[in-house]
Amino acid sequence: MTTEVKPSSRERLLEAAATLTYRDGVNVGVEALCKAAGVSKRSMYQLFESKDDLLAASLKERTASFAAALLPPADDGRSPRERILYVFEQLESQAGAPDFRGCPYLAVQIELKDQSHSASQVAHRIKAKLTAFFRAEAEQGGASDPDLLARQLILVFDGASARAGIGADTITGLIAPTVVTLLDTAGVR
Amino acid sequence: MTTEVKPSSRERLLEAAATLTYRDGVNVGVEALCKAAGVSKRSMYQLFESKDDLLAASLKERTASFAAALLPPADDGRSPRERILYVFEQLESQAGAPDFRGCPYLAVQIELKDQSHSASQVAHRIKAKLTAFFRAEAEQGGASDPDLLARQLILVFDGASARAGIGADTITGLIAPTVVTLLDTAGVR
Repeated sequence: MTTEVKPSSRERLLEAAATLTYRDGVNVGVEALCKAAGVSKRSMYQLFESKDDLLAASLKERTASFAAALLPPADDGRSPRERILYVFEQLESQAGAPDFRGCPYLAVQIELKDQSHSASQVAHRIKAKLTAFFRAEAEQGGASDPDLLARQLILVFDGASARAGIGADTITGLIAPTVVTLLDTAGVR
Repeated sequence: MTTEVKPSSRERLLEAAATLTYRDGVNVGVEALCKAAGVSKRSMYQLFESKDDLLAASLKERTASFAAALLPPADDGRSPRERILYVFEQLESQAGAPDFRGCPYLAVQIELKDQSHSASQVAHRIKAKLTAFFRAEAEQGGASDPDLLARQLILVFDGASARAGIGADTITGLIAPTVVTLLDTAGVR
């Protein structure tokens, strides 16, 4: 019995932590998380050492879906330039949702302030993987300076999604010409 | 007597709110703010309707110093291109400080989540003024699309400062070539 119930409570807590943190911030209370998950505080503390631990686990749990929602399939016939542009087309599409609040990993790192926090470290690793994707495609596409182009692309990713997330701008008509300019200048045709 | 004491308490509260919010986030407690300012809670609530009110006032109070630290003097002989680059040189210099955590206004908007919050609205207006500066210089410099260039520049400003603020990157060697590429493409020589 216990083995059947526990994974479900765990999943619901991970889901609640991801959803509520994204919507309300990292200071969402344990009570609210447990209530949303339909799990007692006692059960939560049996599954996770602390709220920080739950937060880090919830970010980690979403790694695969975050990557799947942004990255093109491997060896799909697209050129490196098209593969890079694909990521920004996905971001533009995501930013159109009414509940879009920008990149959840950037938000967590900005909110926590403490970059040694386990959740900050999970967020940092996930974004470093996206930067590594840009770096690999930049090199494959013959960029004059793949390191610089990768840094520029993740800067545009974070800047555009943050600004769209706070409603200061939209991504439409902004991100595509910006990325194209950077790709052209780097010689990725 | 009261008239002499009150401005000083107010100033100390504004300073504490700006400093502690930037370091610890918008959820910093009233107790911590009052303690840092050396002001009683009773006095605080005589001066400000609420913590939200104090937060909004502290952001507003810093508008002039934020602008002075970033913008070139009016009519200083610099070209529009040089005036735009000046802002990013200042940002690069600011980002070198060990306590740099990115743009305080972007952070507040990301943390509050609620863009109708009075502090979010103050932050939004301050950043809109920076965008308007970019827009005016872009037009003056003959940009092919001044609106687009202004949106790109504030995107780079926010993206680069956010990433430097969380320690994911530095601004050095990144922001200057990116801004130069955007200026060149827009025809601002």
